[in-house]
Amino acid sequence: MVWDQYEPKKWTDDDLQMDIECCGICMSDLSTMSDGWGKAKRPLVVGHEIVGKVTHVGANVKGVKVGDRMGVGAQGDSCHKCSNCERDEEPFCKDGVVGTYNGEFKNGSGPSFGGYALKWRGEAHFAVKIPDGLESHIAAPLMCGGITIFSPLHRYGTGTKDVKKVGIVGVGGIGAFGLAFAKALGAETVVAIGHSPSKKDAAMQLGATDYISTADGSKELLGKYKQDLDLIINTANHTSQDYASLIKCLRPRGHIVNIAIPHGPVCPIPIGALISTGAAMGGSCVGGPKEIAQMLQLAADKKPNFMIEKRNLSDANQAVVDMEANKARFRYCLINDQAGK
Amino acid sequence: MVWDQYEPKKWTDDDLQMDIECCGICMSDLSTMSDGWGKAKRPLVVGHEIVGKVTHVGANVKGVKVGDRMGVGAQGDSCHKCSNCERDEEPFCKDGVVGTYNGEFKNGSGPSFGGYALKWRGEAHFAVKIPDGLESHIAAPLMCGGITIFSPLHRYGTGTKDVKKVGIVGVGGIGAFGLAFAKALGAETVVAIGHSPSKKDAAMQLGATDYISTADGSKELLGKYKQDLDLIINTANHTSQDYASLIKCLRPRGHIVNIAIPHGPVCPIPIGALISTGAAMGGSCVGGPKEIAQMLQLAADKKPNFMIEKRNLSDANQAVVDMEANKARFRYCLINDQAGK
Repeated sequence: MVWDQYEPKKWTDDDLQMDIECCGICMSDLSTMSDGWGKAKRPLVVGHEIVGKVTHVGANVKGVKVGDRMGVGAQGDSCHKCSNCERDEEPFCKDGVVGTYNGEFKNGSGPSFGGYALKWRGEAHFAVKIPDGLESHIAAPLMCGGITIFSPLHRYGTGTKDVKKVGIVGVGGIGAFGLAFAKALGAETVVAIGHSPSKKDAAMQLGATDYISTADGSKELLGKYKQDLDLIINTANHTSQDYASLIKCLRPRGHIVNIAIPHGPVCPIPIGALISTGAAMGGSCVGGPKEIAQMLQLAADKKPNFMIEKRNLSDANQAVVDMEANKARFRYCLINDQAGK
Repeated sequence: MVWDQYEPKKWTDDDLQMDIECCGICMSDLSTMSDGWGKAKRPLVVGHEIVGKVTHVGANVKGVKVGDRMGVGAQGDSCHKCSNCERDEEPFCKDGVVGTYNGEFKNGSGPSFGGYALKWRGEAHFAVKIPDGLESHIAAPLMCGGITIFSPLHRYGTGTKDVKKVGIVGVGGIGAFGLAFAKALGAETVVAIGHSPSKKDAAMQLGATDYISTADGSKELLGKYKQDLDLIINTANHTSQDYASLIKCLRPRGHIVNIAIPHGPVCPIPIGALISTGAAMGGSCVGGPKEIAQMLQLAADKKPNFMIEKRNLSDANQAVVDMEANKARFRYCLINDQAGK
C-alpha cells in the first residue's frame, strides 16, 4: 500500500463525510488487496471497520450533525426497496450488496472507498452512531468482525430461555468476538472449540466457560456436549470440518451457523445427522445498521473483554503483514496518526 | 409375507393391547423387509401406522380404557429420562429410539412387532387417542407419514405471521401430506415442487397454490420465488438435489428441512449460499406423542384432503408390490378384513 490521493464518490444529499479516527483490519481487506476474491478495482482503498467524526451532512440525512461519532461496516449500499431491505435485512438485499470499498453506489454516484484513509464519504444509511462510553478503537473492529458473529448469536436467540448453551468453533479474530458477545448476551455455557490447546487461556479470558481442543479429534467434544448445545457458530472456513460431530452436539432444532465462506464450492454435509438430531445448519453474513446499533449499545453497556490491539495507520503495511502471519491477539485497529500532518 | 403366529413382548403394567383395525403402508416397511437398512430380525411383523381398539390396559396406564381407539406410529420406546424425552422430543432420545417393529424394548420385555397383524401390544406412552370424527383409515397413515412432515411444518411455525409461504419438494406419499397440512396450518402460499409436470392436478387438489416442475431445471422456481419462501420441506432422498437453488428461494433465516435420509453418507451443500442468503438447512424425523395428538386434532378439525386408498390386509402382499411400483396416489392403508375369521 502507498499513500496517494483519490477522487471520492460524487456528493449527494443522502451522504455523510467524516474525518477518520481509526479503522480495524479485517481479513477481507487482505483477500481483496491480493485479488483473492477476483480482480479488485484500482485505485483501491480497503478498510470497512471505520470510526470517524462527521464533517459534512447531506440535506436528506436526519438525526446526524457535524461532530457526531459514527461507524461504518462492510456494507456501503443496498436497494432500500426489496422485502429484505424493508425488514432491516440489508445484508441480504435482493438486488445485491455494495461493499464499503471496491463497489459502485447504486445511484451512479461513483465507486466506494474504505477506511485506510483520512476521510470517508458514503451513504448515511449505513453509518451508525457510536454510543458514548464505547472507545473508538473498540467500536471500529465491531463494525464488521463484531457484527459478523453478533448477528447470528443475537438472531438465533442467545441468552433467551431456549439458548443458554453456545459453542464457538475457532478462536481467531471473529471467534474471540463470539466468546465475548455470547457471554454478554447472557449465555450460561460458552464452549470455545479450537484446534490447538494453546488458545485456552485467552478463550477463558474472553468469556468461555470451557475450552475443547479438537487436535486429537472430536471425542472430548461429543463426550461432554452430545445433543446438548442450543447454538454453535462456526468461524472456520475449511471444507473438511468434522460437521457430523458438531451437528451431534446440537439439541433438536438447535443450529450451527456458518459465518466464513468455505474454501470450496460445496461442503460434504451428513444430512442424515441433521435428520437424526433434528438440528439445522445455517449461514449468516454481517448485519444491518439497526442490528449494528444494538450490538454497539450492548458493547457500551456490558463492556465485554474484546482484546483489540492498537496499531498506527502509518504502520498499516506492517500491521497487514502481521495480520496475515496470524499474530493478532485477536484483532488490530489502525489509529489515524496522520491527521493534520 | 406369510400368515403366521408370533410370541409378543412380555406384558407389563405400562402396556396396552389392541385389536388392529387398519395399518398404513410406509416405505420403511419395504426397506426393512428387504433388509435394505441392514439385516432385520426374524420373525418380522412390519407396519407402524396402526389404528386399533384397546382390549387390555396395564395397571400403570392412566386415561385409557378398554374400547378406546388409539394410534401407534414409528416409535415404540425411548428412555423417558433424557432432556430430549423430558421436553416431548422422544424421537431424539439420547439413549436411542426403539422402532415399533424390529426393535427391543428397553425394559427387557422383548422384541417389538408392528401392525400388519390382528393384534398389537406395546408401551402405552407411544399410543395416542384418535379424536372422534377422524376415520381410522385416514388416521393410520398419519401416524408415521403424516407426522414426518407435520412436525417440521408445525415446529418451524407454518401459519404464524413469519411463515406464510411454504414450499414442498416432492409430490409423493409424504409430500402429499405436506401440501394438505401446510394449507390446514394456514400457509397462504403453498408451492409444490415436483419433477414431472404430471402431478400438478393432484398437487392442487391436495392444497398447493402453485406447482413448479423442475424437469427442465430450477429456472422457473428461482424466477418466481427467489429469497421469498419462509420454509421448504424436502421429501426427496437423492444426494444430487439442486440444493443451491432451493436455498436461494429462502428468505433470511428461512429453513429448508430434509425429512428423507439421502441415499449416501453426505450431500454436497453450498455453504456459501447459506451465508449469502442467511438461510438454514435442517432435518426432522417423525414427532413425539404430544405432537402426534396435535396433528390428529388438526386433521379432525380441518379435514384436509389426504388422498388415501384403502387396501385389504388379506391383500397386503400385492399392496406392497404396488407401493414399490409407485402406484399409490398417494398412500395405502391396509384394512383388517381378517378379524374374526
